[in-house]
Amino acid sequence: MIVSETVEIRGHLIDSGIFTKILLDVREYGGDFVIERFDVGKEAHDESYARISISADGTESLSRLLMTLQTRGVNLVEPGEAETRLAEQDGVFPDDFYSTTNLPTLVRMGGQWVPVDNPEMDCGLLVTADRIRTVPVSDVRHGDQIVCGARGVKVVPLQTQRRRDESGFEFMISEVSSEKPQALLVRQIAQQIREVKATGQKVLWVGGPAIVHTGAAPAMVELVNAGYVDVLFAGNALATHDIEAAMYGTSLGVDLARGSGVEHGHEHHIRAINAVRKAGSIAGAVQQGILTDGIMHALVQAGKPFVLVGSVRDDGPLPDVYADVIEGQRAMRAELSGVGFAIMVATMLHSVATGNILPASIPLVCVDINQATVTKLADRGSAQAQGIVTDIGLFLEQLAFELVPDYRGLARRRQPKVGHHR
Amino acid sequence: MIVSETVEIRGHLIDSGIFTKILLDVREYGGDFVIERFDVGKEAHDESYARISISADGTESLSRLLMTLQTRGVNLVEPGEAETRLAEQDGVFPDDFYSTTNLPTLVRMGGQWVPVDNPEMDCGLLVTADRIRTVPVSDVRHGDQIVCGARGVKVVPLQTQRRRDESGFEFMISEVSSEKPQALLVRQIAQQIREVKATGQKVLWVGGPAIVHTGAAPAMVELVNAGYVDVLFAGNALATHDIEAAMYGTSLGVDLARGSGVEHGHEHHIRAINAVRKAGSIAGAVQQGILTDGIMHALVQAGKPFVLVGSVRDDGPLPDVYADVIEGQRAMRAELSGVGFAIMVATMLHSVATGNILPASIPLVCVDINQATVTKLADRGSAQAQGIVTDIGLFLEQLAFELVPDYRGLARRRQPKVGHHR
Amino acid sequence: MIVSETVEIRGHLIDSGIFTKILLDVREYGGDFVIERFDVGKEAHDESYARISISADGTESLSRLLMTLQTRGVNLVEPGEAETRLAEQDGVFPDDFYSTTNLPTLVRMGGQWVPVDNPEMDCGLLVTADRIRTVPVSDVRHGDQIVCGARGVKVVPLQTQRRRDESGFEFMISEVSSEKPQALLVRQIAQQIREVKATGQKVLWVGGPAIVHTGAAPAMVELVNAGYVDVLFAGNALATHDIEAAMYGTSLGVDLARGSGVEHGHEHHIRAINAVRKAGSIAGAVQQGILTDGIMHALVQAGKPFVLVGSVRDDGPLPDVYADVIEGQRAMRAELSGVGFAIMVATMLHSVATGNILPASIPLVCVDINQATVTKLADRGSAQAQGIVTDIGLFLEQLAFELVPDYRGLARRRQPKVGHHR
Amino acid sequence: MIVSETVEIRGHLIDSGIFTKILLDVREYGGDFVIERFDVGKEAHDESYARISISADGTESLSRLLMTLQTRGVNLVEPGEAETRLAEQDGVFPDDFYSTTNLPTLVRMGGQWVPVDNPEMDCGLLVTADRIRTVPVSDVRHGDQIVCGARGVKVVPLQTQRRRDESGFEFMISEVSSEKPQALLVRQIAQQIREVKATGQKVLWVGGPAIVHTGAAPAMVELVNAGYVDVLFAGNALATHDIEAAMYGTSLGVDLARGSGVEHGHEHHIRAINAVRKAGSIAGAVQQGILTDGIMHALVQAGKPFVLVGSVRDDGPLPDVYADVIEGQRAMRAELSGVGFAIMVATMLHSVATGNILPASIPLVCVDINQATVTKLADRGSAQAQGIVTDIGLFLEQLAFELVPDYRGLARRRQPKVGHHR
Repeated sequence: MIVSETVEIRGHLIDSGIFTKILLDVREYGGDFVIERFDVGKEAHDESYARISISADGTESLSRLLMTLQTRGVNLVEPGEAETRLAEQDGVFPDDFYSTTNLPTLVRMGGQWVPVDNPEMDCGLLVTADRIRTVPVSDVRHGDQIVCGARGVKVVPLQTQRRRDESGFEFMISEVSSEKPQALLVRQIAQQIREVKATGQKVLWVGGPAIVHTGAAPAMVELVNAGYVDVLFAGNALATHDIEAAMYGTSLGVDLARGSGVEHGHEHHIRAINAVRKAGSIAGAVQQGILTDGIMHALVQAGKPFVLVGSVRDDGPLPDVYADVIEGQRAMRAELSGVGFAIMVATMLHSVATGNILPASIPLVCVDINQATVTKLADRGSAQAQGIVTDIGLFLEQLAFELVPDYRGLARRRQPKVGHHR
Repeated sequence: MIVSETVEIRGHLIDSGIFTKILLDVREYGGDFVIERFDVGKEAHDESYARISISADGTESLSRLLMTLQTRGVNLVEPGEAETRLAEQDGVFPDDFYSTTNLPTLVRMGGQWVPVDNPEMDCGLLVTADRIRTVPVSDVRHGDQIVCGARGVKVVPLQTQRRRDESGFEFMISEVSSEKPQALLVRQIAQQIREVKATGQKVLWVGGPAIVHTGAAPAMVELVNAGYVDVLFAGNALATHDIEAAMYGTSLGVDLARGSGVEHGHEHHIRAINAVRKAGSIAGAVQQGILTDGIMHALVQAGKPFVLVGSVRDDGPLPDVYADVIEGQRAMRAELSGVGFAIMVATMLHSVATGNILPASIPLVCVDINQATVTKLADRGSAQAQGIVTDIGLFLEQLAFELVPDYRGLARRRQPKVGHHR
Repeated sequence: MIVSETVEIRGHLIDSGIFTKILLDVREYGGDFVIERFDVGKEAHDESYARISISADGTESLSRLLMTLQTRGVNLVEPGEAETRLAEQDGVFPDDFYSTTNLPTLVRMGGQWVPVDNPEMDCGLLVTADRIRTVPVSDVRHGDQIVCGARGVKVVPLQTQRRRDESGFEFMISEVSSEKPQALLVRQIAQQIREVKATGQKVLWVGGPAIVHTGAAPAMVELVNAGYVDVLFAGNALATHDIEAAMYGTSLGVDLARGSGVEHGHEHHIRAINAVRKAGSIAGAVQQGILTDGIMHALVQAGKPFVLVGSVRDDGPLPDVYADVIEGQRAMRAELSGVGFAIMVATMLHSVATGNILPASIPLVCVDINQATVTKLADRGSAQAQGIVTDIGLFLEQLAFELVPDYRGLARRRQPKVGHHR
Repeated sequence: MIVSETVEIRGHLIDSGIFTKILLDVREYGGDFVIERFDVGKEAHDESYARISISADGTESLSRLLMTLQTRGVNLVEPGEAETRLAEQDGVFPDDFYSTTNLPTLVRMGGQWVPVDNPEMDCGLLVTADRIRTVPVSDVRHGDQIVCGARGVKVVPLQTQRRRDESGFEFMISEVSSEKPQALLVRQIAQQIREVKATGQKVLWVGGPAIVHTGAAPAMVELVNAGYVDVLFAGNALATHDIEAAMYGTSLGVDLARGSGVEHGHEHHIRAINAVRKAGSIAGAVQQGILTDGIMHALVQAGKPFVLVGSVRDDGPLPDVYADVIEGQRAMRAELSGVGFAIMVATMLHSVATGNILPASIPLVCVDINQATVTKLADRGSAQAQGIVTDIGLFLEQLAFELVPDYRGLARRRQPKVGHHR
């Protein structure tokens, strides 16, 4: 039985390519559409408006198609009231739960549009006495009141917000490429970071071990010391390699100066991990004078939080690492408050993990030498991502140079003279 | 204070390139060497023998250098007796613990060479009343007796073993390349798998979600049904995409037949996860008739074990997934018994994780379209790995064709006719 | 001074994404637009129609913007008559020459729409007594009559044609990915090739040396023998490696059977080249019994033409190779007549070169293990390209299996038994 | 019939890995070996010496194997006198011609070791009245006296020379990786370039169009102006994109400042080419005031030579481009005199072409974001290559900063203020 609903969307539908994606979505779900009205923005800066009748085979299919279209900013013309159902088991949503987007979201209850706290994609909407918030499936509890179906829910498309901000910085994922004026992009990101800091918001970093391997740890340390790293999300590997380098000089010391590090030193990393486990924590290792250099040391000294979440390939792990990834996700969520900018460097795993929990309204930059990482992030729904395919080492060197006064001088002083090695 | 020890190694030192690597290791650790004796194998099949005096600055540096050289198969000429120390805390080794390789290892205690159970790299050696076995740092307990220093430990280099096996299959990581006669490699792997099964050993598979995305799930299902998949290690993603495809036809059904799947269907995967959580487990979903197709269904039906270990980017996860990665590692180790061949397909995370715990004596093949995955695996120490850079979909199609009698017929029958799509 | 023109376009403007691209083009050229009319196709299969007023700063800017928009299928509402000017030097167009697209093109002269012979991008339009044809800048001669400006020229967008063909095969460059059901794509391409052959049209192959390196030469030979290769465009490398393999067995013989070829045999290739130079040509080498196997041998035996065009990295080259690349382009153009399908395998250089001269109306498939090759081809304007990121060896093996009756049997017979090698 | 010869080699045979490669070469050619003597260097800095009896099936096989081994620096113990034969046709060597390496080479004639002028790989050795020089097969003429067979030819392995130079810069191709301290590598290359210039030698650059696309043209212009670019090898694309950017501001102007260039502007490049063709040459365009900015402009102004060699994918081409690739190779060879350092940036085609003709004694650096380019160069025999996998834009920015006094100031002044763009 074919059922249908009428939806609408307003914004830069054509030049953003969103209208195209909407129609492709409908086809992919096996649905059909009739464009009932399309008021095209006549001039370049005018918004367009579209009203479309969407049909699908059965209520369930239609409901799921409508939820999918909401990720594009498409809303029901007559949303009606939201319906809720009680979760019957811990960790399980009702079958027809509303699956969230990462866009600002409103729920119509009691004739009122109630804004949803902390938008996050692929969650359910939990209704409590005083508010509505997203809840991941692992955290839902028996008896929780969960929004079901597509009715009574409205999202605010991102493009509209962005223009309101009059930000000088455009985020276009289509720009993923290594053939771009990278030096300029670095300057733009530095500017963006300064602006975010000026408003009192936090800068969230997500990093992989290549930060250490590419010799960029000193640049990163300077960025921490200058106050441009408010919180770090990473895994066991970044912290371990950083600490190993600080303890055994395998990467930051003389060897790096020669351009030939002992990167895969068989037992250094497990020995470094053992030493920190003995100290009880990374902060403990700093306090006991075991750890005296590197990124983790700088974060501890600056009193900046970090969340390290483990993975199945970890050795050890370090005592600070969340072995339970779901608990790790909770710890990451707890640090998102106040974040105004996210920068993800050289890690697909933790970048996607962070992308999963970030609201779409927080601008993010993903930097990797591997184009696939950047593309994957965007495919997963972090449409606000700006991707930069570049070398991590040179990127952080340039970023530190842009942001940290007298950076180059510091870096120079700490480097041994070139030419004395053989 | 410069201290030194004399080490020796026997084998195909030159043509394997091992001797070169040994000397580079010594340099990287800042040590020095004097080649005391070098008896080169005169003809192509003769072994060589080298005795080298290794020196380093201080006992600790030397001890660590000697441990590193053991990963190459280099042993002390006069190993002496192993020394042990008691662990003083749970989860912490003594400072100078012996860090293991993944080679067959012997420990000299009481004048006897005692073989180590289950060799695994980056572990400690735990001495109990009746045996010596590897223990990861997270599992060591206060009071455990742990081997310390490099004395009294001997490893058996891999090359020697391999020749003894007279295996027709050579593993050379240097062969990582996409410019190889891939069709022939598939045939060789099929032959190797048949031989392993003929000896009653198990074939371990490690897989990523691209198995589903490349349309190779039907081939994989046939391989399970034909008995060529004894155990599967994977993450939440492979199982989720497989189950999502089985439940919503997003990948395996009509859409895949058209060559245009709904791969990134926003809410399908979280809804599939919710349904399996409701059923309690994947096996539960099969029993309740909710899950009727796909790889996970085939494994459940065939009674084959799988270990799914979570990661920080997981949604859900599925109820079978280990959220605690350290527990996940333990579950993986528990399934290694009897494994005679490992094949890793399209996953860097789980391939490296498995490489970490596999003894070097188990041959392994790593298949990925991305050369970096294959290279990374070898860099991490899984020197026995054979890498194949190729397309996952076509690889599994060909492998199923080689191994499963009448495979192509089955595949054909399940495909809709070409030409009817729009 | 702002000048403007009104343009129009009809077709699947939204779901194809073309309308979005048009507006982005206008912005990139610094122009502006007013959408005067937009009749959106109400249902999924209806065409849309747009009329847009385009403005730019000055006649020259506007004229160039209009030419660019024609690559999207956008035409002037009131095209007027075409203007022509005489070329004043050999090899130089008049300043404001009309720069062509690769779409079917009509020129209005004497009140009539005259179709342009052999559409090719980045050329000029040469008007002679009896026809209008494209001419590359290197071939224009003093006194030639060349169309100038954007007036009086109309293109026929591709999408309209395609639907008219009722082809069962959709070409979507957005499908570039390695995460696709590759086995199915191979089957679709085989079907397409059969259909093209059934209509009496030719199949053009463009190939790189990886065809030989991946061990796919036997599959390619069978495809030639079965009549599925009507013409081959390649460089010195493919032919040299193929001939070297045939002469010295470095790739196809015993070594390939072992999976370890002598691929970079230092002097084989230059010696093979010398032998063919001595024979005068590849055909000469076949006639003299010097060349008895391989792809080039098969083409000579089958009487199929090939065009080999040199590059600056060539050794030799072979006597059949065009050292002058402009003459090589002319030779390639001369072989395009009757081509109904183009398949490009493992070569960025020759794929882009062929894409440059192919009319947009000829469907083309680009197969490479490197996504960048496929993307580059599309970026250059070959919008009709379907990209497949896969392994060349397995792709050709599967394609031969689909197209050549009893293929697998042939391949099997020629392979030595597995297991006898060491 | 098995024939054999005794060969020898001296140097760092083990730690360089050369000895391993020699034995693998012998196997790959189906030969056999007996190590007659092996004097291993006892301490880290001692050289080793090996004498090996090599056997193969037949004189021709053995002769070819011996030539291949010479690329490793292996020479006959009893070289005897060189044999020569006359070329019987233009462009064809005698069948058993000696195929050259790119190492310094000596030929024994009349009881004397005569050094070969301009070593180049894959050539023949032409003996004239007063000297012996390499000649490519395309340039040999009927009646030329050509060295045949492997006797009487000796090469000087590179490693020996290098140590003699006491250069502070080590070239290790095994270092190809993106996980390296890139900032340090840039500093080392800058130092090397300064040293080469200080000795009065030339710096050769080989570049691809990504130099322009990554926004690095201003850095490159400063490097030209500061005298660090003595000669440039490139193709039509680099020059065209550079000139197009200078003429139409598509890359260097306002758009680049916004980070969103009109890179694929349909007709800009062909129009730029037409304009330069009209001017007769790039230098002509500079003189006529048509071309006033960019890399090519800077080279013309500085009076530095460039060699542009065409390829089959070229549009136009520019009037300075060699359409005949063999003539282009000759023009490149003619510019090698006095070159002391080669740096190859972002072009596989022209890098390999230059690698083909460069003597091994000239150090070279290959910089590309694509690891395959760097690897390919080394595989082709340019064993002296140092590969750097990094971002082109940031690399050239940093290199200019290191080499050009007050560079950053210049760059800053020419950049529009950040933040004013929309």
